[in-house]
Order: sequence, then C-alpha cells, then structure tokens
Amino acid sequence: MGHYDCPCMEKCPLQHAMLLIGGKWKVQILCAVCNAGSIRYNALRGKLDGVSNTVLSSALKELERDGLIQRQEFLEVPVRVEYRPTERCRTLLPILEALSDWAEEDMK
Amino acid sequence: MGHYDCPCMEKCPLQHAMLLIGGKWKVQILCAVCNAGSIRYNALRGKLDGVSNTVLSSALKELERDGLIQRQEFLEVPVRVEYRPTERCRTLLPILEALSDWAEEDMK
Repeated sequence: MGHYDCPCMEKCPLQHAMLLIGGKWKVQILCAVCNAGSIRYNALRGKLDGVSNTVLSSALKELERDGLIQRQEFLEVPVRVEYRPTERCRTLLPILEALSDWAEEDMK
Repeated sequence: MGHYDCPCMEKCPLQHAMLLIGGKWKVQILCAVCNAGSIRYNALRGKLDGVSNTVLSSALKELERDGLIQRQEFLEVPVRVEYRPTERCRTLLPILEALSDWAEEDMK
C-alpha cells in the first residue's frame, strides 16, 4: 500500500486476498492442510470441528480453483484422494501465522 | 500455529481474525482509515469505490465495536464525526500490507 491514495480506487489487492481466503472455513482448511502436508478428505473433516460436507467440499473446490490447494487422485480401488498445499499457499502461510498470532493476542 | 494438531479443534485464532476483518469492505475501510490517519464519513466513502451507505455504516459500527476503529464526535454545528485507527488496528497494518503484497503478486 505504497501510494498515498488508498488502492480502493483501483482493483484492491486486499479485496482479492479476501475473495481467496475470506470464505467460511477457508483459513482453517488451509491451516489444517499445511499442518498435515497431505491429507485425505475424512481426516481433514475430522480436524475441522463442526464443518458440514457441503461447506467443506465447495471450499476445497474453490481453493483448488484459486490455486491454493492441490487435489491428487490415486487410482486404487476405491479411489484415494489427497489434498496438498500448493507453493503459493506455502508463501501465504507466514502471513496466516502472523494473523493468527495477532488474533491470539486479541483474544486474551 | 505452533502445536502440531491444528488449532481448528479449539477456538481458532484465524477464525477470530476472519470474523474481525473478513466482512465485506472491512479490509479496505481499515486500509483507507490507516492511510488517512483521520477521516470523515463522506471522504471515506469517496475512497471506497462502489460501497453503499448501508454496508459502510454497518461495517464501521462493527469495526468500532471490535476495537479496530475509533469514532470521534466534535461538538460543532453541524456535528463533525471522524474515524481513526486504534492502536490494535495499527498492529494489524503490517500483516495487511504483507497480505496485500502477496495478493498483488497473485494478481500478476
């Protein structure tokens, strides 16, 4: 946000960021997938206390579309699917950690 | 996010952060108020291309309630109202700047 005049006038990068990570459960999904490195759907759901199947599957689809999560299918019977963070997600992680630390301070 | 088991199981700080800043236009409002230091309602609205009065006034109320923005009334005729970032908002600013830089990279 270098220039004096707030970027709100042009396409705001913060608006873009919120579109990517602001949706329900998205930051928790990113955090769980990054922590695990690679995780299957049911294991991921188990980590996300209270998330519904509908919300989780649509959030995963959007995170995959937006290039933050990678979905990998293993041709086994039954098919095995795993989710991994992409490199772009890994570059976001330190910012999410700083945001988490700030929020933890805020919750005291 | 120090402990291995993702914080999603307990009260997640990232969830708390998203509740504070995830709402529509909130990060742009924080960015505009921080850039200006102190700003009046109409001037703020002018910086936020396309925001409606309803969304702006409810977001300002929530940001004030959540301690990120300070509303100050000057007893003049007519009454003058200015919005300022709180100290807690200032501590959030570097994280928003990092998120903005990450998103700007992402938009290329």
